[in-house]
Formats: sequence, structure tokens, C-alpha cells
Amino acid sequence: MKIYETHSAPNPRRVRVFLAEKGIADVEYIQVDIQKGDNLKPEVLARNPLGKVPYLELDDGTCISETVAICRYFEELQPEPSLMGSTPQEKAEIEMWQRLCEFYFSLPVGMCFQHTTGYFSDRMNPVKEWGIEAGKNAAKFMSLIDNQLAENKYVAGDTFSIADITLLCAVDFARVIKLRMTEEHPNLQRWHALVSSRESAKA
Amino acid sequence: MKIYETHSAPNPRRVRVFLAEKGIADVEYIQVDIQKGDNLKPEVLARNPLGKVPYLELDDGTCISETVAICRYFEELQPEPSLMGSTPQEKAEIEMWQRLCEFYFSLPVGMCFQHTTGYFSDRMNPVKEWGIEAGKNAAKFMSLIDNQLAENKYVAGDTFSIADITLLCAVDFARVIKLRMTEEHPNLQRWHALVSSRESAKA
Repeated sequence: MKIYETHSAPNPRRVRVFLAEKGIADVEYIQVDIQKGDNLKPEVLARNPLGKVPYLELDDGTCISETVAICRYFEELQPEPSLMGSTPQEKAEIEMWQRLCEFYFSLPVGMCFQHTTGYFSDRMNPVKEWGIEAGKNAAKFMSLIDNQLAENKYVAGDTFSIADITLLCAVDFARVIKLRMTEEHPNLQRWHALVSSRESAKA
Repeated sequence: MKIYETHSAPNPRRVRVFLAEKGIADVEYIQVDIQKGDNLKPEVLARNPLGKVPYLELDDGTCISETVAICRYFEELQPEPSLMGSTPQEKAEIEMWQRLCEFYFSLPVGMCFQHTTGYFSDRMNPVKEWGIEAGKNAAKFMSLIDNQLAENKYVAGDTFSIADITLLCAVDFARVIKLRMTEEHPNLQRWHALVSSRESAKA
């Protein structure tokens, strides 16, 4: 199995942390230069139509893109340690928090970055006003998740899960838009120190 | 179990179609007037922090928001007929296509609607230029998914899945931004007629 990725980007890190938590090491990582557009070459798009990284290539040549779909593959292949829940309710609650962290934090952080810096302006039309607005929306989510972490050790409850991985990678990436935790987010800061101290956070 | 929803909105329809496919009927639907902001009242936000519909209330009072998390709950509770795959590879491929339809079509259609019509301008700052851009991005995805449907009966392959539900609800909702399939999307049109003829499409 091979994972095509860009080491400095936030979504590939989510997969690396997930696999580190699982103790899965028999995967080859291949670097793709997304700034140069190597992910948008016709031969890549034929296998991975949106050209996004990371994507997983299985031994039969099948390509799986989308961070959470890649994580799902490994969760199903090797359920322990569970990172996506065991019972129907646990699975649903973890998926809910994973998605809330993704749609209302990770995504607007990325949009703020792309629309305010023009990083990908060779392949999209940045709308600066929207980028600024997306950054404000991401900042609001920090307060919401701080509330959740006031009553829960981890994002989705008592147990470390994929929701923590999504939030960790997004909080760390948010530095590129100068969005940082402050003293108004004591629970988020407590949680961030806790999850950052895990060996997997270095992946 | 109760599902709080708004009948005319696209995400609640995704859950209703999913449950119709499963043949699950012992769920009470409660209508919420999102235009009036009934979903943003403090007592709702205490249980469902983002205030989005639909959300599922379990008998113990736990609330699960996020369409796909709600679907996951029912998929785990009653695996047959499977709508999210059976093997690790099937599950990953369905999740990939579900997410591609969601992030690159359903989401930009919704953003185009909100940012160009000002539908929720009492609770967000619409950026018209971004709404127009999001609509163009959604239109591009129609060609991409048309290619996928040239070689596959359903979105994720030979079998009807949650990815078809996401795409169906988004294609139908896209009429509000005047984005429609054309003769340039013959495979999408073929697929749309096929999935629309299922009993569940009326849910």
C-alpha cells in the first residue's frame, strides 16, 4: 500500500497520526508537490479525479481519496485500538464530533488560508472577503469546542478518537492564518497539551 | 427516537431517504422552523450546539447531529440492507464518494444558495462574490460525476449507497440556484431517473 501525500499539509497529517495510533507502519509514503501542481497532472486525475492529497493506493491499484475514507479503510481492516467507536451510539457520536470539527473548523481554516493568501490562485479564484469571514467562523468554533472540552477529556467523550486527530491537525494548521488558542480557551489549551504529548502527534 | 428536521431542507431529506431504504419507520419526525430561527433557541443549542437540522434524539436524551452521523447510527443498528458498504474496501469507496458529493457539490450548492440569496442573512454575513464562485464549482462537479456515472450504475459502483442519496438530494436542491443537469450530463441524467424512481426518493 502507498499513500501519496504532502508532508506539510494538514489532511495528510491526519492520516499519519491515525496510522501511528493504530501502530500501522507497513505503508509507503510518496511525496507530491501540490504547490507545483503535480497532483493535477492527467495521469493522477485519471486515478484520483479531484487530485486532492492524501490518497491511498491499494495493491490492486484502486485509489481511495478523502482523509476520513482512508482512515475508515484502516479502522475496518484493523479495528483495535478503536478510533471511530465500537457501539452504534459511540460510532455516531464520534462521527458527529469529527464532522463538526471538520466542517466548522478545519474547512473554514483552510478556506481562510486559501482565500486570503492566494496560495492556490493558479487553480481557483480567491475571494478575500470570504476568506476573512471564514476565519471569523473558525474563531467562533474555538469557543464552542472549548465548552465541549470543559466537560469531556477528549472531543467526543472519555476516549481519544479520530475527532481529536481532526481538531489537533486543524488547531496546529490554524497558525498559518494567525488563529491561536488564547486564555479564553482554557479547556482547549488543556486538551491540546494532552493530545500533543502523544507519540502519534509527531507523525 | 425523534428526528428534529425541516421538511423542505436538503439534509433532512437525506436522512428520510436513508431510513426509507432501510425500512425503518418507528421514528417520530418533529418539524423545526429554521427560517424563524427556532433551531437557535438556547434550549436547543444546549443539546445541539451548532443548531443545525436534522438532529436525532435518542430515548436517553442524547442528541446526534450531522446527517451522516445519524445515518451511521442506523446503519450500525440495522446493517441490512447495507447503504455504507460491507468490506473495508467497499466502506472506504462509498465513504470517499459520499464525501466527494458532499464537499464538492452539496456544500457549494448550499453556499451558493445562502450567499447569493441572503436566506440566512440574519445569522451570517453573505458574500455574494463567493456564492457565485461556489455555484460555478458545483457546476464543474456535475461533469466529474457524469464521468464516474459513465462507467458505474451508481455513484460508488454497482450498488445503491448513501453516496447516491447525497447526490440525489443535492441535484434536486440545486434547482434553487438554477443549476440543472443538461444534455452535457447524459450519464447523470440516466442515473437521476433511476434513483428518482425508487420509492425512497419520495420520502
